[in-house]
Amino acid sequence: MASSGEQDMVPETRVLAIASHVAYGFVGNTMATYVMQSLGCEVAGINTVHFSNHTGYRQVKGTKTSAQEIRDLYEGLVQSYLTDFDVLLSGYAPSAAAVEAVGDIARDLKRRAESKPGSFFWILDPVMGDLGRLYVNEDVVPAYKNAIHYADLILPNQFEAETLSGVKISSVGDITKAINKIHEIYKVPHIIVTSVQLSRLDGSSTPSSTLTVIGSTIRSDGSPRLFNIDVPTLNCNFNGTGDMFAALMVARLREAVFASSPSLKTTTSWVSPDDVPATDLPLAKATEKVLSSMHYVLEKTMEARTAELATPIDPASTEQLTDEQKRLRAHLRETKAGEVRLIRNVHALRNPKVIFKAQQWRET
Amino acid sequence: MASSGEQDMVPETRVLAIASHVAYGFVGNTMATYVMQSLGCEVAGINTVHFSNHTGYRQVKGTKTSAQEIRDLYEGLVQSYLTDFDVLLSGYAPSAAAVEAVGDIARDLKRRAESKPGSFFWILDPVMGDLGRLYVNEDVVPAYKNAIHYADLILPNQFEAETLSGVKISSVGDITKAINKIHEIYKVPHIIVTSVQLSRLDGSSTPSSTLTVIGSTIRSDGSPRLFNIDVPTLNCNFNGTGDMFAALMVARLREAVFASSPSLKTTTSWVSPDDVPATDLPLAKATEKVLSSMHYVLEKTMEARTAELATPIDPASTEQLTDEQKRLRAHLRETKAGEVRLIRNVHALRNPKVIFKAQQWRET
Repeated sequence: MASSGEQDMVPETRVLAIASHVAYGFVGNTMATYVMQSLGCEVAGINTVHFSNHTGYRQVKGTKTSAQEIRDLYEGLVQSYLTDFDVLLSGYAPSAAAVEAVGDIARDLKRRAESKPGSFFWILDPVMGDLGRLYVNEDVVPAYKNAIHYADLILPNQFEAETLSGVKISSVGDITKAINKIHEIYKVPHIIVTSVQLSRLDGSSTPSSTLTVIGSTIRSDGSPRLFNIDVPTLNCNFNGTGDMFAALMVARLREAVFASSPSLKTTTSWVSPDDVPATDLPLAKATEKVLSSMHYVLEKTMEARTAELATPIDPASTEQLTDEQKRLRAHLRETKAGEVRLIRNVHALRNPKVIFKAQQWRET
Repeated sequence: MASSGEQDMVPETRVLAIASHVAYGFVGNTMATYVMQSLGCEVAGINTVHFSNHTGYRQVKGTKTSAQEIRDLYEGLVQSYLTDFDVLLSGYAPSAAAVEAVGDIARDLKRRAESKPGSFFWILDPVMGDLGRLYVNEDVVPAYKNAIHYADLILPNQFEAETLSGVKISSVGDITKAINKIHEIYKVPHIIVTSVQLSRLDGSSTPSSTLTVIGSTIRSDGSPRLFNIDVPTLNCNFNGTGDMFAALMVARLREAVFASSPSLKTTTSWVSPDDVPATDLPLAKATEKVLSSMHYVLEKTMEARTAELATPIDPASTEQLTDEQKRLRAHLRETKAGEVRLIRNVHALRNPKVIFKAQQWRET
């Protein structure tokens, strides 16, 4: 029993998780809840959509939660004194009004915790789009821009970092500019840009097979402390990896903060003293573990996907289909085969072998 | 890493779980999903309500899922070929129409699996009431009576067994009659009556501190094979224990069937040959593990509850309240303190020390 006991678990952590729910597969809260629970967190989930499956399948059934329903569920927690959360993790919200509702919940939790610095922390994934394209309504952008002022850590991808900073990232140096801007405009103390393909940027010598994660914790003078971690890309579009990253970060950041100086966990927003270098930040230590867990799980997912797609399809099952129907069928099969293999690889979430190390970001 | 790896897990099992969802605490799918996942099952969840907390708090906010929404979510799975489930676990449904929707889903899954005997199994918890009292609309009862004809295993409590069988259980012998009737009327091959307090029945010498679980797998002549397991009662009303029982049963029954004769898993409804005695049934073996896991977790919950309630309340936080408000506040505090401590006791779900053994039921 030894290694499935307490010693594999992070410090006790009560999380409110607000994100989407899918019946089948792992994205949103369906991903985040299990990931955090498997590391020992108590997770309360408010689901912002109730879908049959993730949108990567290109067809989905289900309903969205209204902003009022999100507020009501939170009000239900308040009226029964069930709001003793250490962390709020918020992901996809289906409308600007829903983003505002989440922001109001975060502010209320912050207010309740204000007499105890460090006792509440908001990790916000500003889900707006990817690869140069918004996939939410345009009014969601200003809603996030308002909300982020209250967040402790945000997890934008490259496109979202551009959207929030107003800095178009076309060179390696632009990344530093964008992160600087986000610290400056929103006073958000911690930022991780979760995926940058440096090889596509001017002035980079990074190979195209590498993905870079860049993080920063602000110093008292407002300047960033930047680190990066390079990871090999896997040749597949997985769904839910942003949610896996965020959920692992909840547990690993709190663990790293508790393992740091005793006073850090009672410091507002867990901002390390100025003399802590970028690569020694709890944010950097946490990211190392997070990415190591993820790489293992995604490699296993790739293997399982390849094996699943190698099994032959019964030709009789598709012979009546049009070419378009056959293409959809093949897409559905590939998407299903690419669902993240979380359950049987839980040991890699709990006990990652740390294979990636944070480096001081080469500010150019 | 050893004991959090594959060897602690049950055979690969894909489960569709249809039950309630609460943001805070562990009941319904919120309980069942984590329990089954922690044992290695892939779980797809359709949530029949979206509530802030369980009804034991006596106040709750949230919404119920309509029967049409349940059907739509399932239709979403069908249209993307995501219905390869080995087991359906169904629990609380908020209306007769919702029970019918679940029954139709079960029949559809059964139809898809009919060329492969034993490849699909429906565990149905006919949630209708407890302790002599219905807590669903009256029209839910006939809806369950129709649906149960298609179930492989049902998990009624004493009151639900009475409702389904038409036999009022007032003596020990009535239990045998009720189970016989359920086998006979509904042709359901496996039954477990999840909680009987024998000490309250005529002709019993069982102490009042004992709760009895009684199960049966049908023989080919329609007669029951009855076993019982006695467990000590804990002096607390926990919520979600029925859901914990059902979820553990999914994993442990499949495990026991796979560990039995090789042909059992390809036998319709996993009904053991007539020469297998009651106490050697996979159903009995599974129940031993299920109850041993539960007893450990509930004992730990009791300890944690006692400790939590022993911490003093700040008198300033209640001095403005009326007596009625104070009583509600105390009730909410006790209910919260009694939430099942699942996360930190996951090892007892995965590796139970079997302390309860099935006995041949003394048919009177």
